[in-house]
Amino acid sequence: VAQRHPDPPVPLTGPAPLARTGRDAPDPAAGDSAGAALTAHLAAQATAFLRALRLRSQDERAAAAALCAAARRIEAALQTFEPLVDPVWAGALRTELAWLREVLCREHRHAARLARLTGALHRLTSDRDAAAGTMTVGAARAGALLERQLTLARTRAHSACLQAFGSARCHAIADAVALLTSEIPLTPAARAPAARALPPLARQAYRGLADAAGLLPLPACGHPYNGRALHATLADPADPDAPGDPQDLPWHRVRILARTFRYALEVGDADPASGAPDAARLYDAGRTLERHREAADAATAAATAARTPRITPATAYALGVLHADQRTEVEAARYAFGRLWQPAVPATSS
Amino acid sequence: VAQRHPDPPVPLTGPAPLARTGRDAPDPAAGDSAGAALTAHLAAQATAFLRALRLRSQDERAAAAALCAAARRIEAALQTFEPLVDPVWAGALRTELAWLREVLCREHRHAARLARLTGALHRLTSDRDAAAGTMTVGAARAGALLERQLTLARTRAHSACLQAFGSARCHAIADAVALLTSEIPLTPAARAPAARALPPLARQAYRGLADAAGLLPLPACGHPYNGRALHATLADPADPDAPGDPQDLPWHRVRILARTFRYALEVGDADPASGAPDAARLYDAGRTLERHREAADAATAAATAARTPRITPATAYALGVLHADQRTEVEAARYAFGRLWQPAVPATSS
Repeated sequence: VAQRHPDPPVPLTGPAPLARTGRDAPDPAAGDSAGAALTAHLAAQATAFLRALRLRSQDERAAAAALCAAARRIEAALQTFEPLVDPVWAGALRTELAWLREVLCREHRHAARLARLTGALHRLTSDRDAAAGTMTVGAARAGALLERQLTLARTRAHSACLQAFGSARCHAIADAVALLTSEIPLTPAARAPAARALPPLARQAYRGLADAAGLLPLPACGHPYNGRALHATLADPADPDAPGDPQDLPWHRVRILARTFRYALEVGDADPASGAPDAARLYDAGRTLERHREAADAATAAATAARTPRITPATAYALGVLHADQRTEVEAARYAFGRLWQPAVPATSS
Repeated sequence: VAQRHPDPPVPLTGPAPLARTGRDAPDPAAGDSAGAALTAHLAAQATAFLRALRLRSQDERAAAAALCAAARRIEAALQTFEPLVDPVWAGALRTELAWLREVLCREHRHAARLARLTGALHRLTSDRDAAAGTMTVGAARAGALLERQLTLARTRAHSACLQAFGSARCHAIADAVALLTSEIPLTPAARAPAARALPPLARQAYRGLADAAGLLPLPACGHPYNGRALHATLADPADPDAPGDPQDLPWHRVRILARTFRYALEVGDADPASGAPDAARLYDAGRTLERHREAADAATAAATAARTPRITPATAYALGVLHADQRTEVEAARYAFGRLWQPAVPATSS
């Protein structure tokens, strides 16, 4: 990362700053400007990002988590407060950070998927007193098959990750993030006081989140055991190449919007105070939707494993049980999200 | 049924009545005696039983339902109010009626199981807008396999039923029930007024029910998506010949006790007024536990079908999904029962 690549594939450094603001030049009458608040936030995240990048050789896993967290916060700030920054520059940086995160997270996600499915297999093999029973031959074979497939996927993801970190693209990203610690290309709107400029933009992010959540079938999902997440489990997919279940997409969208909004609240005085859930509730809602995503991914992995040629019927049977079990976990996560999102709704009587 | 068999295998007619009571000889100071109330109830049920038996040739299904309903009520009254009747006679009649009911119901239960599994397959093939999708090949084959196996089982049950109705055992039962319309062997305790003798016995039945329900893991099952009913789905059974899942047995027991108690409340003034649920709530609780039994049976049928030799992995996979789906229905029924049984318990926040 230390040496710069001569020809980065994407011009991440972008145009020169449109307006200089910063901690060293506040408007004393109006408190910090919005630009100063945003600059301070991005500088802190960029510092965390670069520190994690340096520490990769020591603790790869912790460094990856820290890198992802900082990248997500930078992306969220650039997205939510886009009117305050050069939009072309911000868009390009967000795209590149998202690519790096995706490469970084993939290995971890394969590992988490295997852990989840192995855990489910053990749960499905335990008796009612939670004592571990003997697995059926099919369940043991299904476990071995999943371990083989997901370990292979994880190894491949690890190689891709190592390759990415040596790439010119990654070096260019590191350079672009390094620039965030000093100055960013602000628009004239960033000169307004933070307390006046930031909340409307956070509110706008919240409206996007609330609108997306409003499209979810929360009333139906508020009935325990509604069975909706299992719909189409045994249907021939309209598009066999589509990853996962199309019914999950609106939930994934809300997960990302909730995370973006939660991070936006960390910038300056961005608290929108408009009936939006607080950071703690947003965090819980986000965790619930991550569980939703993980269970959906695990169900897909079980379904994929069941299409392996020449497996025994007993193996396929266990994978079918596992698939349905994880789709029920998807349903459970939706139910839990509904209760977090609309806590005022009374409990349904069956 | 009209002609009596010379040698019934069980002496159902039993001893002569120990005490004569009846509507024609009430104690005017104390209202109807307990024996009179019980006699009247049993006579009404016996009449219904015999009418259904005569109507079998016209509408077999309706007649079977009416026969079972009357038999269950006779059994419940004889069990709950056993101290009022000759216990040996009552025990023998209950055993025989239970045998006839079992033979009669088996055909209907196979049909209901097939309908439930076919319905589940269609639900699992529908998309989120409940429009029917195209079934996977595996799901279609699983459906065909279940239809074949359960239709065969149903046909066999039908033959067994026809055979039972022509048997000496059935004729003896009809004769014993016919005697219920005139007189029953009462004990001296039956001379007490109904209002004094019946409620304590109904209360005792309720205590048995409440104790059995108290052994159920209702707090755990009150958490939606607790996953307990799926435990051991993929465990090697300790006893491969045991029908169904051992964890279901306490629930089946409560189902029968709840039904018995509800029927006991129909006799005279048997209302125990001791905090017991009323007949409507008992009915709902009982229906919920019937749903529990049906789903458990359907899950077992799917598991059994999956052990058919030479099925394809895709078929086995669909049967695994179906098995887990029905075990989730088992869990849903437990959750619903818990809310009916302990409605005061506040909703759990997952």
